[in-house]
Formats: sequence, structure tokens, C-alpha cells
Amino acid sequence: MRTLDWDAATASLKMIDQRRLPEKLEIVALTTPAQVAEAIRNMTVRGAPAIGAAAAFGLALAAQSSPAGDAGALLLDLEAAARSLGASRPTAVNLAWALGRVLDRMRSYSGPVDEMRAAVLAEACRIADEDVAINKRMGDHGAALLADGDTIIHHCNTGALAVVDWGTALGVIRTAHAQGKRLHVLVDETRPRLQGARLTAWELEQYGIPYEIISDDMAGHFLQTGQVQKVLFGGDRVAANGDVANKIGTYMLALAAHDSLIPVYAVVPTSTVDLALAHGGLIPIEQRDPQEVLDIQLHGERVVPEGARARNPAFDVTPARLLNAIVTENGIVYPPFEVNLPKNVHAG
Amino acid sequence: MRTLDWDAATASLKMIDQRRLPEKLEIVALTTPAQVAEAIRNMTVRGAPAIGAAAAFGLALAAQSSPAGDAGALLLDLEAAARSLGASRPTAVNLAWALGRVLDRMRSYSGPVDEMRAAVLAEACRIADEDVAINKRMGDHGAALLADGDTIIHHCNTGALAVVDWGTALGVIRTAHAQGKRLHVLVDETRPRLQGARLTAWELEQYGIPYEIISDDMAGHFLQTGQVQKVLFGGDRVAANGDVANKIGTYMLALAAHDSLIPVYAVVPTSTVDLALAHGGLIPIEQRDPQEVLDIQLHGERVVPEGARARNPAFDVTPARLLNAIVTENGIVYPPFEVNLPKNVHAG
Repeated sequence: MRTLDWDAATASLKMIDQRRLPEKLEIVALTTPAQVAEAIRNMTVRGAPAIGAAAAFGLALAAQSSPAGDAGALLLDLEAAARSLGASRPTAVNLAWALGRVLDRMRSYSGPVDEMRAAVLAEACRIADEDVAINKRMGDHGAALLADGDTIIHHCNTGALAVVDWGTALGVIRTAHAQGKRLHVLVDETRPRLQGARLTAWELEQYGIPYEIISDDMAGHFLQTGQVQKVLFGGDRVAANGDVANKIGTYMLALAAHDSLIPVYAVVPTSTVDLALAHGGLIPIEQRDPQEVLDIQLHGERVVPEGARARNPAFDVTPARLLNAIVTENGIVYPPFEVNLPKNVHAG
Repeated sequence: MRTLDWDAATASLKMIDQRRLPEKLEIVALTTPAQVAEAIRNMTVRGAPAIGAAAAFGLALAAQSSPAGDAGALLLDLEAAARSLGASRPTAVNLAWALGRVLDRMRSYSGPVDEMRAAVLAEACRIADEDVAINKRMGDHGAALLADGDTIIHHCNTGALAVVDWGTALGVIRTAHAQGKRLHVLVDETRPRLQGARLTAWELEQYGIPYEIISDDMAGHFLQTGQVQKVLFGGDRVAANGDVANKIGTYMLALAAHDSLIPVYAVVPTSTVDLALAHGGLIPIEQRDPQEVLDIQLHGERVVPEGARARNPAFDVTPARLLNAIVTENGIVYPPFEVNLPKNVHAG
């Protein structure tokens, strides 16, 4: 089962509601681009590659519901839908990448409007299918970096749930595991949304890969006491110099690994690389509702005092100097990233 | 109201049950040393100075309930109680320090046994009173390090609840606030026990000091984007070279501050300094029940999947190289700590 998939019978986008996992495996069916934008915003679907694919299907839904009588009118409706879908979350560039890819194809289209509607859907399906293949290739490349017996710290969720299927950083771990390497994963719980404790732990249970959950502030201790051999995570946007915007907490994890000389690998499809941005300081960082931080309970009791306030930046930027390599579907990229990353992206 | 205090009317040790805050302000009365040991173990009372004082009162309860007919027999009972109290938590050295201080006085005692019983209680009360005075002195010394307008990241709880009264690192913030400096505190929630979100936020509400809660993995983002001027925390044991064992997560916070050239200060009474240990690698790190990590809920729902496992080291060691200064009741200690820390401790 894919994290998200087109359902031809109902002409809808079906996706796992990731807010309910691991308590319930619930599938929702979306029929309008507005529903897709909202699902991205409220994190029914999350993970840079997954929201890219979801947005592409959002355009397919826009094409389907548009009353446009010709290709030009349909293109205008698609562009309007793309603006709304593109505004749903600011940091991951895959969203803009997928929308741009579909629109670019349609801008040069000049046939019957119904064939154009079908072409939008076909392009979205291609993006989804390619995503799975790209993940498998990242898995193959990255698995070479992992050794039998490694303990790995992993941040957020980068598994099948973060993509269409397989995973980025967790995909590398899955591939190495499938090759017979014995791995142990220390799963950063990843406050405030707990994607690690909820989603990554749930995935690792399915795959039979041994793991233990740790709170994010524990990673440094395991790194400094020699209990970890590798650090792996995904990315939401990679600047041309190799700076990686990823889930909040990634920077501190990479810093602690670097301080103990433990290799740090970011695993991202080239659709996550934004060569238009010279460095990570230019990447917009999403600020989410502080309530996500305050909504924590222990034993059914509220934790924070009445009237408490909070901050909630959803991403941070890990400077390229802290990364040993970036894995893409085109291979392993080593420093200097400003030279090797553009080459790798263009090799695709 | 003190965090813990002797209640002469009922001859019991009364303390705030910190596991119930901020939901309920509940006072428990303990009448046996076994109850005190359990209260330290289950974190009814926590914070290195607070558990030191609690342990001293535990000896007063042991003296009270001992049937010993002479000073020698009472000393044996006190030593047995001290072994049990001392084993309740391994990392904070204040526990051993307080127990050792009471026992040392009693070893040279040679009067009537009932006067000796009273002397044990008197010594415990002196430890508690001195703790308050020491905190005020740390506050005075440390406040000079804070500037009007500072935003400070603070880890765990180091306020009145972590001591008998006033606080160590939070005591410094309170003193600077009382001097009229306008401060803003970013409160690390401090997973897994959430002492920041629960206790520090609750205290700051009482004191009217502006704050916002952040999850621990956000600190690096605020530091690297220039939004923070100081980082403050307490300590559970400081080695002779200035390495500081403190609540898990302190190391990653100090590392991130250091990476952005933001000053890092540990605030500890000299009773937290263990000159017998050359460096932090020799400090025993308590491993607590993994259930503390797994017992997290969002919106009343369990977060981790069925069968999930976890790790739960309660402390980590921040290397001295990451600290700009250590504040004690005897003044501000700057590097080289291996030279200046012993001098400061002996200045008391």
C-alpha cells in the first residue's frame, strides 16, 4: 500500500491519515484541490516527497473539476490551484517542484481539453511512480554507507510515509537491512509532532528492524559515549552549497554527531535540491501553531501551566560543514557540495 | 513556601509533590527515611540541591525512629539509613555530600542519644537554611552576567523547586529580573519528564517573568538565528576539570550555543562540585525506566506503537570546553576550570 495513490474507481486521491497513526490506520479520500491543500497544511500527509506527489494529484483534481472548455482556460484554473497548493507549506521545495513540473508540461499542451485533463493526471501518476523508483535508487546508493552492526540515529520520519513508497533516509536503512546488514536504530521521537515516536517506530515495527525510541535531547549522550556509528536524516530543501533545511532538531543532532566525529548523511531526492538558493539562510522556515508544542500530555494530564505560551519553528538549517555526504538518486555527493551537488543534480 | 521543610508539629518532612505540578499543588508528609528515599527515586522531589536537603531530613527521620539507646548505636542506624538514601539516585553528588556532612558531625558526637537525635535534625535544618542563602548568593553573582533585554535559553528546572528555595540558574534569572533587567526566557520543555514545560514555566508564571516554551530540539534554531544572548542551566555533578553532568539534553544545548558563540553558564552550589573526579567521564549516569519516554500522549491518545522500546539516560556530560563560566555561591569561575574551580570551592 502506498502512502498516497490515485483511486481510479472513485476518481479521488486516497491517502493514509498520518495524524492518526499508530493508533489507527485510516485512509481518507480527497476530491478537491482545496482538500489536498488542507491535508498538506494540517499534516494528514507530510514528508517533502509525499507532499510533492500529493500536490501533483491536487492539480489532477483541479483539472477534473474545472469547467474549462479549452486548454487555455484549463491552464488558468490549474495555475490558480497551484498557487493555493503551493502556499500550503513553505519550506519543502518538492511542493513547488512538483507543481512546476505539471504546469510546465501543460503550458506546451495544445490538444483537446479532456485529453489535457487526462494528461495532468498521467503526469501526477508519473511523479508518484518515479518517486518510488528514486527512493529505491537512493536506498541502493546509501546502503553502501552502512556497515553490519551499525547503530544509527534517525530524525523525524523519512520512511514510506514520507514519500509515495519506500523512504529516503529510512529507505537506505531498509535497503541495508534487506541486504542482511544487522542494524539498530535509535529513533529520535522528534518533538513537537513526534513523527519519530509515532511514524518511524511504527514503520520499523512492520519491517522487523530493531529500534529504540529516544527523546531528541538524548542523541548527544549516545553519540558522545561511542554508542552510535551513523546519523541519517532526510531533507525538505537543500541549498546549492549543501545546507539542508530539515525537521526542527536536525541541526543539533548533526552538530552533536560532528562533535564526536560520527558521519552524518542527508538522504534526499534531487527534487529537494534548490539550486536557485545559494545557502540555507535563504530557505523560508515555517512557523507552525504553538499549540502543537503545548498539546502534550502525560498520564492524561495537561503538562503546561494555564496561560503558557510557546514557539514552534518547524524546520532548521543544518550547515553543509556538518554533513559527510548527501545521498540522492544519482549517487553519493561528497564535499565540496557547491561543486559536486549541481553536477549530481544535472546528472539525472 | 519552601519546596521542602521540616514540620515540627507533626515531626515530618513536608514537600511539594513535583510530579503533580502544574495540575495540582500537593504537599506530602514523609515520616520514614524509606519514604524519603522513594520520594527521591520517583522524583516527588528532584533537583540536586533539593534532594541533598531531603536526604539530610531523611537522616533526621531515621534518628527519630531509631530505638538506639546510645550514640554509637544511633550512628550505626544513621549509617544504614544513609546507605539506602544515598542509593536512591546516583548522579547528583549533593545527595552524598549532604549525607556525608550529617554523618561526619555525628561521628564526633559523644553526648546523650536524645540530644544527638536533635543534633541530626538541627544539622538538616542548617543545610536547608544554608541552601537558601547560597542560592541568593549565586543569584547575586550570576545576575551580573545578564544584560537588560537578554533572551535566555534555560534547560530543565533549576528554580525554587530544584532547591530548598530561590533556585540556581533560574535563581540568577530571578535576581536579575528583581534588579529590573528585562529578560525573556525560552524554556526547554526538557523531555522526557518535562521539568521545563511543567515546573519552570509554572514558576515563571508566578514570578511574572516573560517566557515561551520550546521543544528541546528547537534551541539550535533560535541560537543559530541570533535570537538568544545567553544559555543557563544548573548541574548535578561538576568534575574537577569543570565538566558538568546535568539533565539530559544539556550537552546538545551547550554545543549549539558554543557553535553560535553564545555564552553558556552553569550555576551550581559548591556542594555540586566533586573534586574527587578528574573529569566528567567518571560521573555515573543514571538510567531510568524507559516507560518515562514512552508515556507521552497527544490529545489523549497513546503516541508510540504497541511493543515499542526506548532508552532513558537521565543525564549527560557537558565538556568544560563548552562553558564560558561556572557560577557558585563563592563567585564566577572562569577557565581554566581545573585551576580556578578548586580555588573557588576552597574559598567557601
